[in-house]
Amino acid sequence: MKKYMFPEKSSWPELLSRPVMDLFEIEKKVQPIMESVKTGGDAAVQSLTQQWDGVKLEQLKVTDNEVIEAASLISEELKKAIDKAIDNITIFHQQQLVEEMPVETEKGVLCWRKSVGIEKVGLYIPGGTAPLFSTVLMLAIPARIAGCKEIILCTPPDKHGNIHPAILYAANKTGVQQIFKVGGSQAIAAMTFGTETIPAVYKIFGPGNQYVMAAKQLAVKHGVAIDMPAGPSEVLVIADNSAQPDFIAADLLSQAEHGKDSQVILVTNDESLPEKVEASINKQLALLPRADFATDALKNSKMFVVHDLNEAVDLSNVYAPEHLILQVEAPELLVEDILNAGSVFMGHLTPESAGDYASGTNHTLPTNGYARNYSGVSVDSFVRKITFQQISAEGIKNLGPVIMEMADAEQLKAHANAVSVRLQQLNNVS
Amino acid sequence: MKKYMFPEKSSWPELLSRPVMDLFEIEKKVQPIMESVKTGGDAAVQSLTQQWDGVKLEQLKVTDNEVIEAASLISEELKKAIDKAIDNITIFHQQQLVEEMPVETEKGVLCWRKSVGIEKVGLYIPGGTAPLFSTVLMLAIPARIAGCKEIILCTPPDKHGNIHPAILYAANKTGVQQIFKVGGSQAIAAMTFGTETIPAVYKIFGPGNQYVMAAKQLAVKHGVAIDMPAGPSEVLVIADNSAQPDFIAADLLSQAEHGKDSQVILVTNDESLPEKVEASINKQLALLPRADFATDALKNSKMFVVHDLNEAVDLSNVYAPEHLILQVEAPELLVEDILNAGSVFMGHLTPESAGDYASGTNHTLPTNGYARNYSGVSVDSFVRKITFQQISAEGIKNLGPVIMEMADAEQLKAHANAVSVRLQQLNNVS
Repeated sequence: MKKYMFPEKSSWPELLSRPVMDLFEIEKKVQPIMESVKTGGDAAVQSLTQQWDGVKLEQLKVTDNEVIEAASLISEELKKAIDKAIDNITIFHQQQLVEEMPVETEKGVLCWRKSVGIEKVGLYIPGGTAPLFSTVLMLAIPARIAGCKEIILCTPPDKHGNIHPAILYAANKTGVQQIFKVGGSQAIAAMTFGTETIPAVYKIFGPGNQYVMAAKQLAVKHGVAIDMPAGPSEVLVIADNSAQPDFIAADLLSQAEHGKDSQVILVTNDESLPEKVEASINKQLALLPRADFATDALKNSKMFVVHDLNEAVDLSNVYAPEHLILQVEAPELLVEDILNAGSVFMGHLTPESAGDYASGTNHTLPTNGYARNYSGVSVDSFVRKITFQQISAEGIKNLGPVIMEMADAEQLKAHANAVSVRLQQLNNVS
Repeated sequence: MKKYMFPEKSSWPELLSRPVMDLFEIEKKVQPIMESVKTGGDAAVQSLTQQWDGVKLEQLKVTDNEVIEAASLISEELKKAIDKAIDNITIFHQQQLVEEMPVETEKGVLCWRKSVGIEKVGLYIPGGTAPLFSTVLMLAIPARIAGCKEIILCTPPDKHGNIHPAILYAANKTGVQQIFKVGGSQAIAAMTFGTETIPAVYKIFGPGNQYVMAAKQLAVKHGVAIDMPAGPSEVLVIADNSAQPDFIAADLLSQAEHGKDSQVILVTNDESLPEKVEASINKQLALLPRADFATDALKNSKMFVVHDLNEAVDLSNVYAPEHLILQVEAPELLVEDILNAGSVFMGHLTPESAGDYASGTNHTLPTNGYARNYSGVSVDSFVRKITFQQISAEGIKNLGPVIMEMADAEQLKAHANAVSVRLQQLNNVS
């Protein structure tokens, strides 16, 4: 890891800049896949699945039997752990669905908002070596709490045409209604346009490789919403001299093992800490099955020594990390100054992996600096807040002249008329 | 207006389809403007302003003197109306900033969310014949309530290099800190990349023509967030035999006068209503200064007669209107079934123009069917909800085994280690 001692504030943006992702080339490859699914439907999806996943599927939809069988294919311990995580995630997300009371902004003028679940949502779960069943929980639980009527999930099959049973178990437990064996940009295309068996949805959620990301961006052009733009996962740890090098090293490594493009940053006011952390990283790294990924990720990663913790938070705000871990004596003193972060982990005993799996918070978070302008996924992501208003005779008499004055000044006469026809009639009646 | 009597449900999507907007051609024209502002800064903005707005500006930034003078250039009545609207919009939006309480999802595991204003936001207000000062209120008020630290506004100058005083008055009253004389895609480019005088922002809000919309979509590719995709404004009125044809006609016209691409729809279970409404439209239309726009818009507009009000709501849900007006005897009976709409106006005395200006709700709403997957602008649009968590020794002992079980199953060993190093140390201590 590169080390920077007391870097000038003016140098931070440069030092903290992320690798630029250019999806343009990938978009050009994804575009024809989108088109082919749009026109070819299921047949196109099946042929693309054969091409990319190496399996010829008779049926895209996971059967009820497959779902039932899945529960017997994973250990009781894992099922119990998943069930516990479901409980905690549900408790935390449940409270995000708030009923707002009507407000009388003016005598006779009642305004309110109502949260209404997005009717049809599609969840994407990537394939690869590890089955990301935890992401199923993070997307399906808020979708169900939000009241989405149709929740579908797409995930690529393995070479035998199967989905990992932990994914099926998690999806079934959290109310996903239909699961389809399709991955990559063809899955995003199917949920955008719909096929004979895969329904089109209004919003698509979930992580994926650059092809999936490019496809999601193209989906937006076709009127579908997406959770957020994405990039490589990242963590920034702020530590003082109360921190334990072994804890810091473990947290940095748990980020670094995600992939070679993961971003890992340590910021500290303790000059002696970077060396200790590095020693601990080397010790822990040797035992990791994904040491190759982690080693590559650490090459691009950085350690900063700054004058004090306020400066550390300032630096973190410039970076806007997806995950921010505060391994300091008094993390609560820093909270007020945190402007840009996805999720914050307070104190020595709060590892990022708690939020990744089971504490209750969501792990679908803004990466790549998007913590400046996006929130992580929550129940909010699955609802629209529709505004309502109801005006009484007294209300329109009170408010009418204000509306008409403003409409006239904007030269929108018909807007004023919509009030005056009503006032006129009320005057005639009274 | 075209009339459809009891159309089959299967025909609704076709009958309700909107004109397709293809921004591709416009994007090709906007791209070089974005590039030129990115590389040329203020000089490029000034030259583009001369080209498009026909005025050579010495200074892009509106001076304090211009702002002070503006207040003397508009009538006391208009100022009072704007002030009243500010009050109501503030009251309604204030309650959207909710402080969520921490939740103990598990003994010793505390999770919460905190709303933090997006640091830097840019508001765009279009030019044209009418000064859209109401949109200034709808964007700046929630931005200030959200706690955004930097709120800037761009709007094109007239041929004399001036901004309409009502816009300056509204901006000054609602806490906009800097106002710049720049419009069109060059304004969006300036807020995306920043120039010597115009700061770059993290999120851009506001309506505009197709060039502005295309520029906002390109801004997204450069990491800037936008409020929502946009399209022509639209209204759908559901009416029964208690409705007043004059009120319906006035509401339809107040939408139609926006522009020739406005969408206007009436759905009723009263067969006699369409004719009466059309007669009233013709009567009212004759008196409108913007009758040309309205006449064109009405040509593409539609009236549907359906069997009952439930069917009317179903049809409205398929269309997903920006504005939905319920001119029926008992609008509250329909609320539960409304799935897709931007803002709903309940009852005979609640014209859309109330929400456009002064009732308190926001008028920046999802058009073009985006009510299916987007909410209108609110305080939510200007904050990120950052999650926090703090775990005690008891908490990590309770939750640790669950995290480790799940991390192992996802083959992310370092994620499990981040827990085990902590549990180990706690065991050593106790």
